[in-house]
Amino acid sequence: MDLTEKPIKQEYIYKGKILNIRVDDALLPDGGSAKREVVEHNGGVMIAPLDDDYNLYFVEQFRYPYMEIVTELPAGKLEKGEEALSAGMRELKEETGATADNITSLGKLYPSPGYTSEIIYLYLARGLSFGEQELDFDEFLEIKKIHLDKAVKMVMDGEIPDSKTQVAILKIKLLKDEGLI
Amino acid sequence: MDLTEKPIKQEYIYKGKILNIRVDDALLPDGGSAKREVVEHNGGVMIAPLDDDYNLYFVEQFRYPYMEIVTELPAGKLEKGEEALSAGMRELKEETGATADNITSLGKLYPSPGYTSEIIYLYLARGLSFGEQELDFDEFLEIKKIHLDKAVKMVMDGEIPDSKTQVAILKIKLLKDEGLI
Repeated sequence: MDLTEKPIKQEYIYKGKILNIRVDDALLPDGGSAKREVVEHNGGVMIAPLDDDYNLYFVEQFRYPYMEIVTELPAGKLEKGEEALSAGMRELKEETGATADNITSLGKLYPSPGYTSEIIYLYLARGLSFGEQELDFDEFLEIKKIHLDKAVKMVMDGEIPDSKTQVAILKIKLLKDEGLI
Repeated sequence: MDLTEKPIKQEYIYKGKILNIRVDDALLPDGGSAKREVVEHNGGVMIAPLDDDYNLYFVEQFRYPYMEIVTELPAGKLEKGEEALSAGMRELKEETGATADNITSLGKLYPSPGYTSEIIYLYLARGLSFGEQELDFDEFLEIKKIHLDKAVKMVMDGEIPDSKTQVAILKIKLLKDEGLI
């Protein structure tokens, strides 16, 4: 069966700073139609700083949609036209003050494919050197060092809800178990 | 440092079927202010059907925001007031035709905490019996059986981008390695 849906009509409800909202009429595979609400997002990047003793460096940040402090690996939005790897290096420096000798991909992530077009690109950073943070004017966060083994336990115990951070910690654990890092 | 941000002004831009859009002025920790764009979402549920031979049952579904077919574990939105566990059992039956003797929690997931309030609740379903699918009118999908070991390899190779599906597969792998399932 061909599962493809096609846009019949597209309407922008909102064009904002970090996202646009579109409501489309879509043609369904059986010839019917349905409304599709879409959050257009320019994409994000996450970079996991892992030191030689297998400590990870997290940021604790107030996340407005949940009205709570969330523990995450360093991350940020892609600027228009910005390449994911260089955005990751920029966010790492801004949020933790770190630079890295060696950066490898941990794949990509679709956070919630039912309604958002965001793609988050994941990276692992090794060979770390620490300098000064360079936070944005509206960015307030605290850095927390947690060993990989403890971080895995926190994910399994439900203490790290952020999706990209869960995925990255569990992938790094498997790569380490396989002797690849 | 107190990282808390407080709403000064809230404005609804859109109230829709699966999401609302709000643009707030927020009071920052240093007394300044900033715009915060928020997607209000009622929450979701994912349920991983795992049979006695450690095969997982996936759905392949056209995901409109990406205009591509995405391989995911069965999932759906919470209806207003609906409890996550019963919603998970409903989605499992609707999408795969399966019922389960035994359901346990795999935690929760914040898909993209910078802008959406969605929480996705994750479950593992064992003791499966298969009957007929009961799809919604605008839902078209195909079921795919993949062994856990193959699924882990697909996650590590970047072939399963969906965040909830990556997290669930990697958690199930760790639980199995620890002899807990």
